[in-house]
Amino acid sequence: MAETLQSELADRPPGTGRIESFSDGVIAILITIMVLELKLPADLFPGGHLAEILRAFWPRLVVYAMSFLMIAILLINHHMILRAAPHSTTSLYWWNINLLFWMSLVPLSTAVLGNAPLEPTASAFYGAVLTATTVSFTLLHRCAVTIGSRAGKVERLHLLIIYKDTFFTALYALSVPLAFVSIYISMAIFLIVPAAYFFPDYVPWPQSWQLHEPGIRKFWR
Amino acid sequence: MAETLQSELADRPPGTGRIESFSDGVIAILITIMVLELKLPADLFPGGHLAEILRAFWPRLVVYAMSFLMIAILLINHHMILRAAPHSTTSLYWWNINLLFWMSLVPLSTAVLGNAPLEPTASAFYGAVLTATTVSFTLLHRCAVTIGSRAGKVERLHLLIIYKDTFFTALYALSVPLAFVSIYISMAIFLIVPAAYFFPDYVPWPQSWQLHEPGIRKFWR
Amino acid sequence: MAETLQSELADRPPGTGRIESFSDGVIAILITIMVLELKLPADLFPGGHLAEILRAFWPRLVVYAMSFLMIAILLINHHMILRAAPHSTTSLYWWNINLLFWMSLVPLSTAVLGNAPLEPTASAFYGAVLTATTVSFTLLHRCAVTIGSRAGKVERLHLLIIYKDTFFTALYALSVPLAFVSIYISMAIFLIVPAAYFFPDYVPWPQSWQLHEPGIRKFWR
Amino acid sequence: MAETLQSELADRPPGTGRIESFSDGVIAILITIMVLELKLPADLFPGGHLAEILRAFWPRLVVYAMSFLMIAILLINHHMILRAAPHSTTSLYWWNINLLFWMSLVPLSTAVLGNAPLEPTASAFYGAVLTATTVSFTLLHRCAVTIGSRAGKVERLHLLIIYKDTFFTALYALSVPLAFVSIYISMAIFLIVPAAYFFPDYVPWPQSWQLHEPGIRKFWR
Repeated sequence: MAETLQSELADRPPGTGRIESFSDGVIAILITIMVLELKLPADLFPGGHLAEILRAFWPRLVVYAMSFLMIAILLINHHMILRAAPHSTTSLYWWNINLLFWMSLVPLSTAVLGNAPLEPTASAFYGAVLTATTVSFTLLHRCAVTIGSRAGKVERLHLLIIYKDTFFTALYALSVPLAFVSIYISMAIFLIVPAAYFFPDYVPWPQSWQLHEPGIRKFWR
Repeated sequence: MAETLQSELADRPPGTGRIESFSDGVIAILITIMVLELKLPADLFPGGHLAEILRAFWPRLVVYAMSFLMIAILLINHHMILRAAPHSTTSLYWWNINLLFWMSLVPLSTAVLGNAPLEPTASAFYGAVLTATTVSFTLLHRCAVTIGSRAGKVERLHLLIIYKDTFFTALYALSVPLAFVSIYISMAIFLIVPAAYFFPDYVPWPQSWQLHEPGIRKFWR
Repeated sequence: MAETLQSELADRPPGTGRIESFSDGVIAILITIMVLELKLPADLFPGGHLAEILRAFWPRLVVYAMSFLMIAILLINHHMILRAAPHSTTSLYWWNINLLFWMSLVPLSTAVLGNAPLEPTASAFYGAVLTATTVSFTLLHRCAVTIGSRAGKVERLHLLIIYKDTFFTALYALSVPLAFVSIYISMAIFLIVPAAYFFPDYVPWPQSWQLHEPGIRKFWR
Repeated sequence: MAETLQSELADRPPGTGRIESFSDGVIAILITIMVLELKLPADLFPGGHLAEILRAFWPRLVVYAMSFLMIAILLINHHMILRAAPHSTTSLYWWNINLLFWMSLVPLSTAVLGNAPLEPTASAFYGAVLTATTVSFTLLHRCAVTIGSRAGKVERLHLLIIYKDTFFTALYALSVPLAFVSIYISMAIFLIVPAAYFFPDYVPWPQSWQLHEPGIRKFWR
């Protein structure tokens, strides 16, 4: 569609600007409405004891911070991905909307896990939403790279990032069944994945991901 | 108004940029606050049985996904429509605001249908809001095309799209009375319309919509 | 502040772009979160009678539509106002933030009036918030025009619009005490003001506002 | 990461635009969702006495206005800070996300303090969130100035502002323990800091902050 009209309205190039700004808008809202779920202990304050408040509050705050960090990582990578696509296509729109759909469930899964941090079902639900999000992310990346490739602009770096993302997606997928074995395994996965993206230098990446591509080692610097 | 000042402040052209970004903002928020309605089963998790949670949750998730898809279709077409208008006018502002008003009721109708999926009134309300939204959409399209036409830039493709949109608007309008006959007829309509836009090649369009205008067949590609 | 740094970073001109986009963002959110207040009758649907639902719902919908229209009028005029300022200053930032503060109370006053449409206190509160909003709007307009004037770009049209806005602000201010005489007087004011802006040709404006300045007659066209 | 790809995609410069617009989006949402916490007295209106409503409402409104002002001050300074950075880096992204995380807790702390204005724990929590926010702000400023410095564009003005910000951050930090001595000391701090930024001419700044740098005296003009 976009392609058809754009060839006719050749004076206005079909950039990725409006996809970027719409996604930024949705992600900004998602990252913010999660905080609405934190408000419950507000009722505890009048007359509540400090220790009691903190006991009810800290699991929610930890889960909130974990989801905030994950969404921030997705946001920064989203900026990088769209730079790989020299122009927008309808497929790019739809893979992006697919990603936003699954990301939009993150505030719900955050609320569920924050309210019942020791419940295996809650952990599995949190893991399932993150798995769907990261799968969608990899599909969007592949689509953007394909457009770049057709325009003769693809880079080996992007393929390596897709391998890395696939590995951590698999780890998230494992967190779903493992939650019913022990919720602590799932929680470890929920902490390891953001950390692996945030502190890339302390992770034993395969050689091909690390040595020959200085770009990957500097990923989060 | 815009026209008057713009002729005086001729150095700043009255583009459609601010209409686009404001609409993107409103649509981003609408698509996101719908997820706030999903949070109710969060209370079920502590101590709830998995089967029970899923039974309460899946109708809401299906209705949410349906509304999400419909808003995404409107969003992508909104981008296309505004490309048809070479500059903004006050009418374009108001038809756009009219569209946003009816779209802003979609989260409400989604919550209503998600909470009472078997209630004819809820189905009729959901259909009525979608009818008003698609009518407003067609009116905005007509306005944008008229501006393009005055500037000598109209295309037959846009008229064909308006015919197609009118047909599906009529289908939505039918879902309102038919909900009181059987809610399953309404639900079929709610599923058929997005699908007809999402998979255009599998729909038996009239010849004029399909053959002579390759643009339509590639609409959602 | 902005002025100081900008004279030093002369390569980046201090446009009004970031004020516009931030304001659009806040207004987009305000116009959308009002709809969250409408969701209450969702609970009525399962098993509720249609007549009963409509009786509880229509005052909220009318008040919502009234506030939506008023915010849309403010939005379109906001776009016009910022076009009058050739560059941004710190005062412009602050008068704009002052406007957004009072506008941010509109969803609250809308909820209050929608829940208790026959309560004089609710009517007075709704009127007071709108008075503060329109006063802030006129102050922002005056500031933008002053900047334009220093840059030698002011227009008599803006002064006439400020007179008109002052007149309707006074009308809103009257709605506060008059709510305690009869809520129907207040409601008439709440309906007349948006209508006066929406259908300007049917209002007996003073001659100076109308004849010699065709710009005003075409204000909302 | 951004740096790596940007050197390869040298045709698209890595401006600070997307950081700015994302931050504006998040701040616009934060400033707006705080108003959702104000809605509680809406239930008081039907049948409530005016005096009773005002008694329940005014502490919330005061705390809301205080937080609104503080976020507005942060927003305007955020615009100024990002002008200091000639281009974006991954560190800038992360310091910015760190700031947004702590700012996202402001609506929560506002609700807590508005609901229990006389509770020392609530005052301490409000002060702690503001302390974390202003510390993050100073860290972001330092990062932006460092980028500017490498590009040979740093200014002594920024260092003076960082000193000033550090002083008021220390004052906020003091409000946390002092809340348990007397909540009125904390409240005085919550009022003094925004005022010191809003009315800079009436504050006895150290000479070095004031006389030799006219930019600082005009900070909020």
